[in-house]
Amino acid sequence: MTSDLIARRAALLGPNVPTFYDEPLHIVRGEGVWLWDAEGRRYLDCYNNVAHVGHCHPHVVEAIARQAAQLNTHTRYLHEGILDYGERLVAKFGHDLRQILMVCTGSEANDVALRMAQAVTGKRGFIATDNTYHGNTTAVAQLSTRRPPIGGWPDHIRRVPAPDSLAPLGGSMSAQPQAFAEGVACAIAELEATGHGFAGLMLCPIFANEGTPGIAPGFLDPTVEVVRRAGGLILCDEVQPGFGRIGSHWWGHEFLGIAPDVVTLGKPMGNGHPVAAVVARPDVMAAFRNAFGYFNTFGGNPVSCAAANAVLDVIEDEDLVENARDVGGHLLEMLRSISHPMIADVRGFGLFLGLECARDGRPEPDFAARVVELSKSRGILIGRVGRAQHILKIRPPMPFARAHAGILAQALGEAIDEASRDF
Amino acid sequence: MTSDLIARRAALLGPNVPTFYDEPLHIVRGEGVWLWDAEGRRYLDCYNNVAHVGHCHPHVVEAIARQAAQLNTHTRYLHEGILDYGERLVAKFGHDLRQILMVCTGSEANDVALRMAQAVTGKRGFIATDNTYHGNTTAVAQLSTRRPPIGGWPDHIRRVPAPDSLAPLGGSMSAQPQAFAEGVACAIAELEATGHGFAGLMLCPIFANEGTPGIAPGFLDPTVEVVRRAGGLILCDEVQPGFGRIGSHWWGHEFLGIAPDVVTLGKPMGNGHPVAAVVARPDVMAAFRNAFGYFNTFGGNPVSCAAANAVLDVIEDEDLVENARDVGGHLLEMLRSISHPMIADVRGFGLFLGLECARDGRPEPDFAARVVELSKSRGILIGRVGRAQHILKIRPPMPFARAHAGILAQALGEAIDEASRDF
Repeated sequence: MTSDLIARRAALLGPNVPTFYDEPLHIVRGEGVWLWDAEGRRYLDCYNNVAHVGHCHPHVVEAIARQAAQLNTHTRYLHEGILDYGERLVAKFGHDLRQILMVCTGSEANDVALRMAQAVTGKRGFIATDNTYHGNTTAVAQLSTRRPPIGGWPDHIRRVPAPDSLAPLGGSMSAQPQAFAEGVACAIAELEATGHGFAGLMLCPIFANEGTPGIAPGFLDPTVEVVRRAGGLILCDEVQPGFGRIGSHWWGHEFLGIAPDVVTLGKPMGNGHPVAAVVARPDVMAAFRNAFGYFNTFGGNPVSCAAANAVLDVIEDEDLVENARDVGGHLLEMLRSISHPMIADVRGFGLFLGLECARDGRPEPDFAARVVELSKSRGILIGRVGRAQHILKIRPPMPFARAHAGILAQALGEAIDEASRDF
Repeated sequence: MTSDLIARRAALLGPNVPTFYDEPLHIVRGEGVWLWDAEGRRYLDCYNNVAHVGHCHPHVVEAIARQAAQLNTHTRYLHEGILDYGERLVAKFGHDLRQILMVCTGSEANDVALRMAQAVTGKRGFIATDNTYHGNTTAVAQLSTRRPPIGGWPDHIRRVPAPDSLAPLGGSMSAQPQAFAEGVACAIAELEATGHGFAGLMLCPIFANEGTPGIAPGFLDPTVEVVRRAGGLILCDEVQPGFGRIGSHWWGHEFLGIAPDVVTLGKPMGNGHPVAAVVARPDVMAAFRNAFGYFNTFGGNPVSCAAANAVLDVIEDEDLVENARDVGGHLLEMLRSISHPMIADVRGFGLFLGLECARDGRPEPDFAARVVELSKSRGILIGRVGRAQHILKIRPPMPFARAHAGILAQALGEAIDEASRDF
């Protein structure tokens, strides 16, 4: 069965379309924090952030079904859907971030965010870290590609050294915030010297793909000062930290204590329904709307807004931000009690946690990969992140309860012990 | 009520987010070819192509609701959804177009298509017509933007003179195919001279946004020869003609009789659910997959595939391609019987029809705009297209029946008569 599906995939999708795991999973059903494969095996989902309020949450499913049966059209007509949702969403932001542009994917959102910075500044140069991912459009992929694009690396993109936990910028965790800012300052000078000028810095405020290396409130203060002085914009990609995942706040930038000019939202927003958005100040939105004639056919359609609105309902009704704080903190404690020479650090923000696999200061990605496989065989789904893919990533649906945390901690401890035999 | 919604939109969405019509419509319900506004007025929808199989088709709604309640996740797991759908879809293509990459919007599809051509050719230059639209990402918008982008027009994009019905390229309709090819040849030479090289030509095979100006089988033959000789790819944007709208064929390129290297699909594919795709030959897909590490979180998810699969069910079960041929042909005859000095031409491909408003060879966009408004007041929704927005566009949901065609033809005749009083 599985091999048949693999063959059909290869024939239909072509090469280099990877699946997770040595033996790919054939998942057929989801409910809450659980997934089932075709043979009826149940897995505790500890890393899928798209199903933010839980797989197939009935409130979201019902909202989609109801609106899809009523009307699904575009924003060239008036409709309450986008207004009711958008007003509710922007009420969760400060810093005058009170206008919205709705799209279908985080990639589309980041693609628009870049153009907002271009419209405001009149410049075209961008900066991102050298160990990040912001999406898959041509323009956005240039921020994160690891292979030279056709035609060569674009000159108007500069990738600065990402913060790192094993080899902190500036030589120490305490020096890292300033050292990161110096990398950004250097990149700005280069962009200005080449004539592109500096439009903006795009980053995930908890540096999720970089493995959340020693990120604390104030981390970005020196960087923000550098960016502001150069007249650039701060573009916060909140796809991973947003919608309360970090427990302490609704948005990563609030945790850090910075005021972005533009915020982008994606994956968790519709619990799997393709909906995403850009939130910006009115001056930024006006600059974009006047510089670019932008229309997105599916963006902000009534069904997408109904799905996204239902997600907000569930987050609030089930108190999922507080749950992320409570269960995430509890899980962090439990994971910290796993004492093992290969686990160099355990850190977390609400329900985004990482276990850094390293020995003698060197990343151990093979060990981490083995733990992922052994967890899977115990019915636990986790992933990996970080420059060397050496950090175990735990990022479950938000209704993850203390009981689930217990199951995860126990299985993960066993998987780590078993993996140790081979290392 | 309406003015309240307009004020809320302005506050939430910012400036330059246009609605259709002088007085925007507040649409609250859709069913088949009908839309209803908040005051209960019913409109015959004669231009919305997203609701391809009819607004809120129960079979599509049910497929979405059922799958959303079962599982919605990504393609890093095995799942039959993308395979069942993709295999069924590519079976409708010839020319070895048998692999698929699924995304969420036509813009994302075209953004990928451009990179496919770059991956195959190693070049980065593209050509499109100077009166087209292929989407809204940064890369794709460069093919169609009417304002200089921030940082100036990109040098690797060349926009060639679009075919035109009032002022045909080469001076006559019969000379136009060759003249269009010469424009493309000239642009290729420029791209090669500047060092970008020529990767591909992107076009809609019926030149929908250009107003389908005298497009007949064989139209592109000289152009295809020019493109092939230069080693470039033909990228067919089938968002408008595809899925049987043109009645004679499933795809516009089959009508024209050309073999594209890449085909992109969008709007009608999920009847409003955000799903889109790129279909390509295996060699083209492999070049892309090996050159770019592309993953689309929502692309090909089980719900999107269920929606798209249900759309194919309805097209087949309700014989909608044949319906487009039959009703479109019938409607074309009726519209041709409207004899009026302002209507210079009436043409159509299945359920994509245009009435060209012109006098003495000059486009009459204001007359066309007035007809659109007067049709609306008669409960008929039509749009405009063409370089001067002077062509009345009729592009209804595919279950448009002969009875609907009669209602449309009568109301449109009246609207044209009434508009004449002011012109």
